[in-house]
Amino acid sequence: MNNPELNNPIRNNVEVNGNVGQVSGMEVPRFGGHSTFARLPRIEDVSKYDVAILGAPFDAGVSYRPGARFGPAHVRQASRLLRPYNPAQDVSPFAKLQVVDAGDAIMNPFNIQEALVGLEKHSAILIEKGKPLFTIGGDHTIALALLRSLNKVYGQIALVHFDAHLDTWDTYMNASYTHGTPFRRAWEEKLLIQDKCMHVGIRGPLYDKTDLVNDKKFGFGIVSSTDFNNQSLDEIISKVKSRVGDAPVYISIDIDVLDPGFAPGTGTPEMGGLSSRELLAIVRGLKDTHLVGADVVEVAPAYDHAEITGIAASHLIYEMISIVASKN
Amino acid sequence: MNNPELNNPIRNNVEVNGNVGQVSGMEVPRFGGHSTFARLPRIEDVSKYDVAILGAPFDAGVSYRPGARFGPAHVRQASRLLRPYNPAQDVSPFAKLQVVDAGDAIMNPFNIQEALVGLEKHSAILIEKGKPLFTIGGDHTIALALLRSLNKVYGQIALVHFDAHLDTWDTYMNASYTHGTPFRRAWEEKLLIQDKCMHVGIRGPLYDKTDLVNDKKFGFGIVSSTDFNNQSLDEIISKVKSRVGDAPVYISIDIDVLDPGFAPGTGTPEMGGLSSRELLAIVRGLKDTHLVGADVVEVAPAYDHAEITGIAASHLIYEMISIVASKN
Amino acid sequence: MNNPELNNPIRNNVEVNGNVGQVSGMEVPRFGGHSTFARLPRIEDVSKYDVAILGAPFDAGVSYRPGARFGPAHVRQASRLLRPYNPAQDVSPFAKLQVVDAGDAIMNPFNIQEALVGLEKHSAILIEKGKPLFTIGGDHTIALALLRSLNKVYGQIALVHFDAHLDTWDTYMNASYTHGTPFRRAWEEKLLIQDKCMHVGIRGPLYDKTDLVNDKKFGFGIVSSTDFNNQSLDEIISKVKSRVGDAPVYISIDIDVLDPGFAPGTGTPEMGGLSSRELLAIVRGLKDTHLVGADVVEVAPAYDHAEITGIAASHLIYEMISIVASKN
Amino acid sequence: MNNPELNNPIRNNVEVNGNVGQVSGMEVPRFGGHSTFARLPRIEDVSKYDVAILGAPFDAGVSYRPGARFGPAHVRQASRLLRPYNPAQDVSPFAKLQVVDAGDAIMNPFNIQEALVGLEKHSAILIEKGKPLFTIGGDHTIALALLRSLNKVYGQIALVHFDAHLDTWDTYMNASYTHGTPFRRAWEEKLLIQDKCMHVGIRGPLYDKTDLVNDKKFGFGIVSSTDFNNQSLDEIISKVKSRVGDAPVYISIDIDVLDPGFAPGTGTPEMGGLSSRELLAIVRGLKDTHLVGADVVEVAPAYDHAEITGIAASHLIYEMISIVASKN
Amino acid sequence: MNNPELNNPIRNNVEVNGNVGQVSGMEVPRFGGHSTFARLPRIEDVSKYDVAILGAPFDAGVSYRPGARFGPAHVRQASRLLRPYNPAQDVSPFAKLQVVDAGDAIMNPFNIQEALVGLEKHSAILIEKGKPLFTIGGDHTIALALLRSLNKVYGQIALVHFDAHLDTWDTYMNASYTHGTPFRRAWEEKLLIQDKCMHVGIRGPLYDKTDLVNDKKFGFGIVSSTDFNNQSLDEIISKVKSRVGDAPVYISIDIDVLDPGFAPGTGTPEMGGLSSRELLAIVRGLKDTHLVGADVVEVAPAYDHAEITGIAASHLIYEMISIVASKN
Amino acid sequence: MNNPELNNPIRNNVEVNGNVGQVSGMEVPRFGGHSTFARLPRIEDVSKYDVAILGAPFDAGVSYRPGARFGPAHVRQASRLLRPYNPAQDVSPFAKLQVVDAGDAIMNPFNIQEALVGLEKHSAILIEKGKPLFTIGGDHTIALALLRSLNKVYGQIALVHFDAHLDTWDTYMNASYTHGTPFRRAWEEKLLIQDKCMHVGIRGPLYDKTDLVNDKKFGFGIVSSTDFNNQSLDEIISKVKSRVGDAPVYISIDIDVLDPGFAPGTGTPEMGGLSSRELLAIVRGLKDTHLVGADVVEVAPAYDHAEITGIAASHLIYEMISIVASKN
Repeated sequence: MNNPELNNPIRNNVEVNGNVGQVSGMEVPRFGGHSTFARLPRIEDVSKYDVAILGAPFDAGVSYRPGARFGPAHVRQASRLLRPYNPAQDVSPFAKLQVVDAGDAIMNPFNIQEALVGLEKHSAILIEKGKPLFTIGGDHTIALALLRSLNKVYGQIALVHFDAHLDTWDTYMNASYTHGTPFRRAWEEKLLIQDKCMHVGIRGPLYDKTDLVNDKKFGFGIVSSTDFNNQSLDEIISKVKSRVGDAPVYISIDIDVLDPGFAPGTGTPEMGGLSSRELLAIVRGLKDTHLVGADVVEVAPAYDHAEITGIAASHLIYEMISIVASKN
Repeated sequence: MNNPELNNPIRNNVEVNGNVGQVSGMEVPRFGGHSTFARLPRIEDVSKYDVAILGAPFDAGVSYRPGARFGPAHVRQASRLLRPYNPAQDVSPFAKLQVVDAGDAIMNPFNIQEALVGLEKHSAILIEKGKPLFTIGGDHTIALALLRSLNKVYGQIALVHFDAHLDTWDTYMNASYTHGTPFRRAWEEKLLIQDKCMHVGIRGPLYDKTDLVNDKKFGFGIVSSTDFNNQSLDEIISKVKSRVGDAPVYISIDIDVLDPGFAPGTGTPEMGGLSSRELLAIVRGLKDTHLVGADVVEVAPAYDHAEITGIAASHLIYEMISIVASKN
Repeated sequence: MNNPELNNPIRNNVEVNGNVGQVSGMEVPRFGGHSTFARLPRIEDVSKYDVAILGAPFDAGVSYRPGARFGPAHVRQASRLLRPYNPAQDVSPFAKLQVVDAGDAIMNPFNIQEALVGLEKHSAILIEKGKPLFTIGGDHTIALALLRSLNKVYGQIALVHFDAHLDTWDTYMNASYTHGTPFRRAWEEKLLIQDKCMHVGIRGPLYDKTDLVNDKKFGFGIVSSTDFNNQSLDEIISKVKSRVGDAPVYISIDIDVLDPGFAPGTGTPEMGGLSSRELLAIVRGLKDTHLVGADVVEVAPAYDHAEITGIAASHLIYEMISIVASKN
Repeated sequence: MNNPELNNPIRNNVEVNGNVGQVSGMEVPRFGGHSTFARLPRIEDVSKYDVAILGAPFDAGVSYRPGARFGPAHVRQASRLLRPYNPAQDVSPFAKLQVVDAGDAIMNPFNIQEALVGLEKHSAILIEKGKPLFTIGGDHTIALALLRSLNKVYGQIALVHFDAHLDTWDTYMNASYTHGTPFRRAWEEKLLIQDKCMHVGIRGPLYDKTDLVNDKKFGFGIVSSTDFNNQSLDEIISKVKSRVGDAPVYISIDIDVLDPGFAPGTGTPEMGGLSSRELLAIVRGLKDTHLVGADVVEVAPAYDHAEITGIAASHLIYEMISIVASKN
Repeated sequence: MNNPELNNPIRNNVEVNGNVGQVSGMEVPRFGGHSTFARLPRIEDVSKYDVAILGAPFDAGVSYRPGARFGPAHVRQASRLLRPYNPAQDVSPFAKLQVVDAGDAIMNPFNIQEALVGLEKHSAILIEKGKPLFTIGGDHTIALALLRSLNKVYGQIALVHFDAHLDTWDTYMNASYTHGTPFRRAWEEKLLIQDKCMHVGIRGPLYDKTDLVNDKKFGFGIVSSTDFNNQSLDEIISKVKSRVGDAPVYISIDIDVLDPGFAPGTGTPEMGGLSSRELLAIVRGLKDTHLVGADVVEVAPAYDHAEITGIAASHLIYEMISIVASKN
Repeated sequence: MNNPELNNPIRNNVEVNGNVGQVSGMEVPRFGGHSTFARLPRIEDVSKYDVAILGAPFDAGVSYRPGARFGPAHVRQASRLLRPYNPAQDVSPFAKLQVVDAGDAIMNPFNIQEALVGLEKHSAILIEKGKPLFTIGGDHTIALALLRSLNKVYGQIALVHFDAHLDTWDTYMNASYTHGTPFRRAWEEKLLIQDKCMHVGIRGPLYDKTDLVNDKKFGFGIVSSTDFNNQSLDEIISKVKSRVGDAPVYISIDIDVLDPGFAPGTGTPEMGGLSSRELLAIVRGLKDTHLVGADVVEVAPAYDHAEITGIAASHLIYEMISIVASKN
């Protein structure tokens, strides 16, 4: 490039331990510069990485309010507020690990199955050799593609699924692959370890009582949202941890696990969800598990206000990267 | 009608036990079709009903932010998210009972007393022979009309009143019938059972200390919002239930009982309210009471965001119908 | 039904010349009652009809901002403001014709082609024997289904297409049926009369100059948005009318033909569009054409503000029904 | 007061020609300080005044979206942007005249007629001896009270009425005094000069063709919104001016005369209105008339966005005060 | 003034014990009249005062979302909802004390240090002789000016600081005076009592672990937001009270101590904050401390929704005034 | 990088004539991928460029509503809608020229003059050898830095300034460098060609009549917003073009030149502005001038709705790049 001074895409990023971190908030105001996740380098801008963050801009699988296709751009913009040191876990994740923004997977908005293949391929490249991947949805359909690519590295895995909904339905208007069905498909495809999966935060009306019966058959345990009324956070953390044990764990967070008051920007909100502090506590409580990847899905920016849903989503990803960093 | 195929207004509704339920969410996307409450049949479309839902589009009684006149339309639109099975109460209310949307009462926006007469007459028809009625406000003024028509069927009743405000004021600018006075009038008209009525969620500044003295005189007990800081949900439920005993119970929920973070779309918000999970817990805790009717009022859509207030209101009605269904 | 007084779904509607019109705005406040289009009767509630209004809640064909699936519900809610007499055309359309709300077509959100078949079938029933149909989108994909069903009654027709975009692209990510392709497909399926079709309001960047070349080949004329800078409204009306002549005319209005200032609630807004007064003038100017049907599409409520986009859409349908009524 | 330095409420206001003007925008940032109209002194803070501005916070007369009760506070907040010199009329109105903010009239929200009496009394005091009064609504009902008090000073007057609606209806649900009826009542009370009144900007559907017949009978001329399509601004100004002649003129501006794109924050928006530049041109064009008072009504802040409706309303008042100042 | 009837600026205010209180909500609807805080008299309108409320419209010190310059106007508008009697503290603060709205300090938006001087001077006048002052921000930079003026009356004081952030950073882009540094500067200027200061509600990522080390060195204790997960409100109150002892206490509340769900209208929101009920409980729990002043800062109205952030801010000020009133 | 397949940051961009253009909208949905302007390559990703686009995230110079610091991120996000071929100018700008997104200049938010130096340096590098630069503001203060760096390449230049405001004020609260003063400073620094500069769109109240006198003295001509009422677009274009002649031209567009209805997302909106079609016409009309650079400033996203202001800003930049491309 003909302007040597401006030629280096990571010229303003802080480097610690050989890891290229965020653009310095002390030199470049956080509202300035490109909108990569947490102002981290793009994957193309560094020579190696330990952890990748991928966007999955897709919402053709939603049954009610669409818009999660804009989730990755929105969460990246909201992630400008993240700073390098996480006191809650006492770790500086971007100093411990080379974390990169891997951009967005190409997902065909007009063909759900082709879109899933696109994401599966893209994520498979990023996680080869066991690198953790954190994906920003998109709707919950994307989890299936991610579980498929993880399966090739880890075999069956344990799932900790934060959501208002079970997402183990069979079909919806004859469609097998929607945001209500990823974990039914995953179970059928034997991607999950039987009896090591757990839903957290379930609530709201169902289509039928057999939804619960089926779900149990697929090997899921449930911590419902109302369980938070009379169980302590420590009890719930223990319950989740004892279920997943030392299996490789994938965390899938549908942002609608939060109450609509904390996360209005989503597609199928249900009254009576978790508070943001409860959710943070449970996620942080999983820090000794064998976390191999995660997603945060269903952020629908057109329904968000003051970016509060996007800020929550970006912070959750940050905490989960911190879990990985704490162990390295 | 000249198009036989389209001639049946309930052709897409699910029928169970002879009850016509919701339009099938598996066949017709929930964002499609007419906006009746929970996509249930209109009262005109079925030959009998057990429970009616009525809109009361009226806000001439409000003292601050108006707009609750659009509450019924807004809550109906938000109620599209409701599904048929309620796991929290283990009941499918629309399969147990024939629930119908009875449309809106005609309430004159320029004449409060005439409006109350209109609602009283309309509701009286719907509840004859003891059918439970669930009303979507509208501002809180409407509760007086409903208590009047209930009185003709049940005599005096017990009231569980969820609200930030007492609503037992006397007059406001010489007006006797406003959203701040319905329960004072109800007490004067001897519609309530002395000492069997309770406010839940009271908070915020008052006009005068005598507001509390008067309120007690009218026979109300109070669980204030701050009581939720150091009393368990079970304790509060017990307190409410022991107060109402086995009397016929009317539940009146001003949506501002929720904190503004959970219910911004209302007219006189007060800091420090209930969380949506707390409110759900208390309402569900009333399941063994003798519930004869209820209202959810003060949803002002122009101040709502992402329908979160409307969703809460629709869910509360759903839970209360489930209480009735659980007993049938 | 067991409540005779409330048994008649059209008990509050005004009847003129044997036609059941709107719910009376003098008796029932316009913010009350069910949300049918313009508070007209549902198709099931009357014994015959002359003109039907149909919702097409579908947006799986959109390439940018989704949300038009909520268009029909939003436009119906906004249409409460319509009154019975149209002074601009000196006609009372609902007194001249029996106009009904035919509800929504069932369109599979996960399968575009199946969705088109659903709409084609539903609309075919409604237009049999030449009844005009007015459809509320939904995204522009739906126009293809409507042109197909019209073809069975009228053969090839002339199209007046108001839009910022040509919508004559070939495929988008290998998808043949999207909101950018309906009129290419229609031309291929020989649904349109060569050289009797016209785009009005075209503007904004294209993918390639050949987009224009192809479009001309398909037989379209163009009145661009910038043409409104130096041609009078009368000149433009003449140009459109002389093109369509006395052929059967279908009007398809993508609401994004309006400038984003007048219609923010849409999916692919382009700077520099028509004003609402300009659009009204052109539409009214088509009153002597042989109008056989129309749609208004691409209203995406999540991006609307104060219902201004919905109000515009509802008014446009009202004007086009008035055209039909003026000739009867 | 015990803090002499802060003791003078107009210590930051600019004084020219003995008139106390706005708080200086060069010393106190315009976002700071109390929210009087245009940051002018309160009526209590100066010893005399030439022109008063009065708020009429009232919306019990509205038939659709309420909220204009918050209009005065909103328009005052938006008026902070006004500066002292008006180049369009080449006048510094607050230097030529002592203009004051007279606060709000007390209007009972539960009793329309009592509210009108309150406003009539308050305005009568302010206009005694022929001082022009500019009133911020509030819904259009308030115009009747203002015409009544003007009548006592001027006798019958000419009315220039900017609105989408005629506001000459008779009753609405048996109510005689609503925002749709003020000019019918004014005609009946002989407050207006027959054949010297004019509506400007009329559009949208009516209840009946006789609405127009009656309106004409009451002596109104009409410049419709569509007339702006083919008549020049100068022609329209001439038409209005020749109608009012040299009679005392009252201007009543319903903000919905603007298209919803320019003024979304209002209660009964109609597609196809005036642009803000057109409205400004006509209002300024009335500068040689004998203006004795004016109102700007129907600003409903809950539906406004980025204060654009409030800014328009405040600017219109500023232009009309400038007309008075130009003649002094 | 030439209109004796309207000549008294406090003609509608309630007077108790010789104190001029709020405009009567029973006579003047709360949405009407000038927007002073809680509808109290301006400082110029009464002859003495006990407690003053001051606006500090300034946001040149913010590092992310600006807009707190509009905070004072917004909080005043939201404060219309406050009523005279506070049942939570059993006191009528405006009857016990003469509370006045002192308007806004003049703060130069283009020169941070000059702005601080402006506020320091203005506040020093208001607090002379030990009158408590309550300030509405503005961004957190303003706290330094207030601590400086308090220092002249009280010497060093104890600080109870509610915030998501420490605000003890050193510089930001070489700027010493920003919203992230006031308490570092205060410590350097010896305005605070070592070991008698406390942060409450801290959370979110930091720049570096040394941020915490420094903070401790400056003599601050911390109750973090996550401490609310496993400590009772009473425990936390005790912790804070035992730290400040009987020293003069200044409370500084950054509204972002609340979770974004409760206070979206702020500049640097962090997930996982306090609920509004928790914050109210802690603030009320400080009622026996020696409170000498307080601020509520960082309300950024452009990001607020339905005024919920403004309502919270106004209520917090009300509670703190009530603390002072309870002791008088 | 260890993932060769993903190693190329421009792997999805379309290349024409050796120029790397936008990410292909046919392969990657426009809502996906990083948010560079128009999805063009970053400056670091290509080996040479012809035209650069630079963000200037800065708003410390604003006198009313802040927030333009988020303008660059917002306009980039809105620019995803731009396609490669511009039919209005019959040119494919990104095929004719290598256009790149040069990221954001570093501008100190706490020190206006230091910020200007930062932008001046950064822009000077980008424009060396006469490359056109297009800058996204930021507030209007930034124009001064850009005029300074242009001066080093071109000497004095002609300015076409679209704005509601003159921006030739002297100081504001003693500050010389604010968004109201850039062109006064530029004139003093002799950066502009006397009598070859022009304001377009001026309107709204001024501080004093001498504002206009001064402005004329500085060599500016004015086409006011009201001139658009009675002059044709062609006349106005001629007037502007004859003024600038063949001098090097800089275009500075304050987005508030548009009416608030078209551009609500700005800081000092004024009623009565240009329509988006008018502005586009004038800008396009300048295509034969010697355009050397431009800015679009004062987009304040917190006040925008549905991105309509951002879309307008991005389109204006696109049109101006097209002017440059048309001549190459």
